[in-house]
Amino acid sequence: MAIRTRLTERLNIEHPILNAPMGGAAGGRLAAAVTAAGGLGLIGGGSSDAQWLAHEFAEAGNTRVGCGFITWALATQPAVLDAALAHAPAAVMLSFGDPRPFAPAIKAAGRLLICQVQDMRHAEAALDVGADIIVAQGTEAGGHGARRATMTLVPEVADLLARRSPDTLLVAAGGIADGRGLAAALMLGADGVLVGSRLWASPEALVHANLQSAALAGNGDDTLRQYAGDVARGAAWPAEFTGRVLRNSFTDRWAGKEEELRPVAEQLRPAYVQAIANADADKIAVYVGEAIGMMDTLVPAADSVRAMAAQAETLLRSRAAVMTG
Amino acid sequence: MAIRTRLTERLNIEHPILNAPMGGAAGGRLAAAVTAAGGLGLIGGGSSDAQWLAHEFAEAGNTRVGCGFITWALATQPAVLDAALAHAPAAVMLSFGDPRPFAPAIKAAGRLLICQVQDMRHAEAALDVGADIIVAQGTEAGGHGARRATMTLVPEVADLLARRSPDTLLVAAGGIADGRGLAAALMLGADGVLVGSRLWASPEALVHANLQSAALAGNGDDTLRQYAGDVARGAAWPAEFTGRVLRNSFTDRWAGKEEELRPVAEQLRPAYVQAIANADADKIAVYVGEAIGMMDTLVPAADSVRAMAAQAETLLRSRAAVMTG
Repeated sequence: MAIRTRLTERLNIEHPILNAPMGGAAGGRLAAAVTAAGGLGLIGGGSSDAQWLAHEFAEAGNTRVGCGFITWALATQPAVLDAALAHAPAAVMLSFGDPRPFAPAIKAAGRLLICQVQDMRHAEAALDVGADIIVAQGTEAGGHGARRATMTLVPEVADLLARRSPDTLLVAAGGIADGRGLAAALMLGADGVLVGSRLWASPEALVHANLQSAALAGNGDDTLRQYAGDVARGAAWPAEFTGRVLRNSFTDRWAGKEEELRPVAEQLRPAYVQAIANADADKIAVYVGEAIGMMDTLVPAADSVRAMAAQAETLLRSRAAVMTG
Repeated sequence: MAIRTRLTERLNIEHPILNAPMGGAAGGRLAAAVTAAGGLGLIGGGSSDAQWLAHEFAEAGNTRVGCGFITWALATQPAVLDAALAHAPAAVMLSFGDPRPFAPAIKAAGRLLICQVQDMRHAEAALDVGADIIVAQGTEAGGHGARRATMTLVPEVADLLARRSPDTLLVAAGGIADGRGLAAALMLGADGVLVGSRLWASPEALVHANLQSAALAGNGDDTLRQYAGDVARGAAWPAEFTGRVLRNSFTDRWAGKEEELRPVAEQLRPAYVQAIANADADKIAVYVGEAIGMMDTLVPAADSVRAMAAQAETLLRSRAAVMTG
């Protein structure tokens, strides 16, 4: 018994579930756990650091995993893509920026190209470069993203694919933390889901327990979009992308006042970097999504993947049958 | 063949679909058309004008309809609630503000109390006043609302209801324009949906064709949240609520610069009011949601209600069966 979709067929996986390749947080252990549970794990190569990536591919061992990059950051270190392709990843995901410089090498290497998009303009661009899978990411997602919500972006991209490229698969991201979200995404027209926050709060994620505890204590009202964290770190994110984070003393002070922070950011940076090193969940940007409202405890990644698939199957099978008589 | 939920049972309706009681736009004709098609129609008493409301109840004729109010506006004209209750509405919905001053009269009159909420704090407040139905409205919705997205707010409120008040029904709003959205909402734990934009773009809505055409020409990327429209009109909306509108020359100039608009708003008001009277879709706030990306044409309200129910039923029955084997 399992949910079968075009995604499970194309990727030859048991459950239509991928983890978000969260930069720094989704290492080899998390990716391998997701694959071992029946999904497909993706290592988050956000920092575009070849050594880190090599270490995390090693952590995944012989388990089949893919990886993902922050496209604008990869552009500053393009050789990292070659290093990643040398690991024969199951798929390579590009997010946040122009995929054109990198798509040809990924396709030429025979790897599945996943493009994460945040709006319709991005979706068109992903089709232009021949994406095999489009991840439509809603604004409720944790970490970086943009303004569109999952509930409308997924069906609208599905309509675009039906018109322009019916063989391209569609994965929903943003706000999906349990089987209800998976079942809903499939009804919206997605072939599967990409899960961030729920797997970020797993022992396998490379996330300090302080940050996980702070996020799990909050509800879904306790996050907001901002870019103060990027200004504080000196990360050159394009203006269209902001980051969803946990509300805390740092965001109370600086969210919405980023341009006030900018001139003093360099001066404040040593303290900010130290607070990151200390995993001080009150003083730094803690990247997590609205889905924390559905999460109370740390859960092993494999358990989350299996529980999500089982709950979605029950909803689609039993609850749907009851409602439709 | 139909979808049966606790909402269809409790309201004794055929389809678990309500229209959003959009102030000024959801008149008696729209509400009656929604009821006649098997849903439950709600007149939008946003402006809290007893004469307008009486006229619209008359337009609905003998068709069973309810009505909705902007709670903070109703507080300035509380007698309008008595006038509304005299029409024996099927339900009264309160949105955007403290329901405590009005809930007792609605319950005492034996009317169903619907409270629309935008976050978990609002949901707790709705339970405190004994709401029979909670509408969880996501940020992708058109018109006024707040920050949470439908995809996470609905299941999180469902969990709250399961803990605190299992007999309270849950309706999802925000981004739902077709059967995919209805099916998804039911999977998220809702008992039904409340539909705005799709029914706003119907011939029965009290909306000028200029505005409908402008919205239908856009896609879901073409809306944004702002409060420039409120400042321009001089409407005293509480700061926590902004309005999702169509991007146009007005928003290009003033969205995000509302505090710059405020000191000149009175001076600009005659021209703004004239632009509203002219239905100049480029010069005024046009309240509509991200769901416009799934809409291309004006559709009679009854057709939208029936098509949504039929598509959702097909998805829940056939597609769910295929996916679960």
